[in-house]
Amino acid sequence: MTGLLITWRGTVLPEWVDYNGHLRDAYYLLLFSYATDGLMDQIGLDEAGRKATGHSIFTVEAHINYVQEVKVGVAVEVRTQMLGHDGKRLQVYHSLHPANSQPLLAGNEQMLLNVDMNGPFSTPFAPAVHEKLGALMAQHQSLPKPEYAGRSIALPAQRAG
Amino acid sequence: MTGLLITWRGTVLPEWVDYNGHLRDAYYLLLFSYATDGLMDQIGLDEAGRKATGHSIFTVEAHINYVQEVKVGVAVEVRTQMLGHDGKRLQVYHSLHPANSQPLLAGNEQMLLNVDMNGPFSTPFAPAVHEKLGALMAQHQSLPKPEYAGRSIALPAQRAG
Repeated sequence: MTGLLITWRGTVLPEWVDYNGHLRDAYYLLLFSYATDGLMDQIGLDEAGRKATGHSIFTVEAHINYVQEVKVGVAVEVRTQMLGHDGKRLQVYHSLHPANSQPLLAGNEQMLLNVDMNGPFSTPFAPAVHEKLGALMAQHQSLPKPEYAGRSIALPAQRAG
Repeated sequence: MTGLLITWRGTVLPEWVDYNGHLRDAYYLLLFSYATDGLMDQIGLDEAGRKATGHSIFTVEAHINYVQEVKVGVAVEVRTQMLGHDGKRLQVYHSLHPANSQPLLAGNEQMLLNVDMNGPFSTPFAPAVHEKLGALMAQHQSLPKPEYAGRSIALPAQRAG
């Protein structure tokens, strides 16, 4: 409907909840990390693809905005938008929502790097992977830029200044 | 020695390691999340302080830079620098290192918000907490700005443009 990829679906587990009774900040990123695994499955870097190419994906940088608390047992999903890529880097935006529902729970921008696991060292995407990224990017490039992409952290007084 | 707070010490556990055999991206943030708990203990928001004030701290925004892989079993520590605060917000920078050693494994900037758990809604820091933050800030304000603070995510071609 939105043109975004669904890259992870699941339920918030008791072991992810903190002393405040809601999803601990780090476990939002775990769901987004699983979503990146889900994206890898869709671009030919699933386990078979990783074996065939000797490549994997490392996260270089990540930015998260926490919008709503999430309680244990809630069914959630991650939607993914491609923001850009070059020969060996992939910039994506994940958003966490209640399953089949619109409210935004958190947003997460990631910069990912293709690596040859024989090093590990960075290396260009395998041709078949690069082609899939290009096709996805063509589908996503007309989508609006997500609200929480491109952010840096600052106190309100610093932003105002 | 550096003037930074040590806010977490521990060892990388097997359940934090991904299919590449190293600490999964989300679990770096778990260590930084534990470090924020450690900081809370040092500013009067430990369990007793949370009960007495009815306050807690929510993470609003976080930015992580991944610098080195970390293998299972490695002893690591988190060092914390105060970057700023206002009446109800706290901006901190955590860095992950091998225990008692200088190499940087990852950096994490966080914006934290003081909340009244009766809402939850944001609320000014309790006076004793605010005073501790001011004292820490006075100690940290002459420290150099961390390399990975204030970042936003972009492809190299975007930065060059």
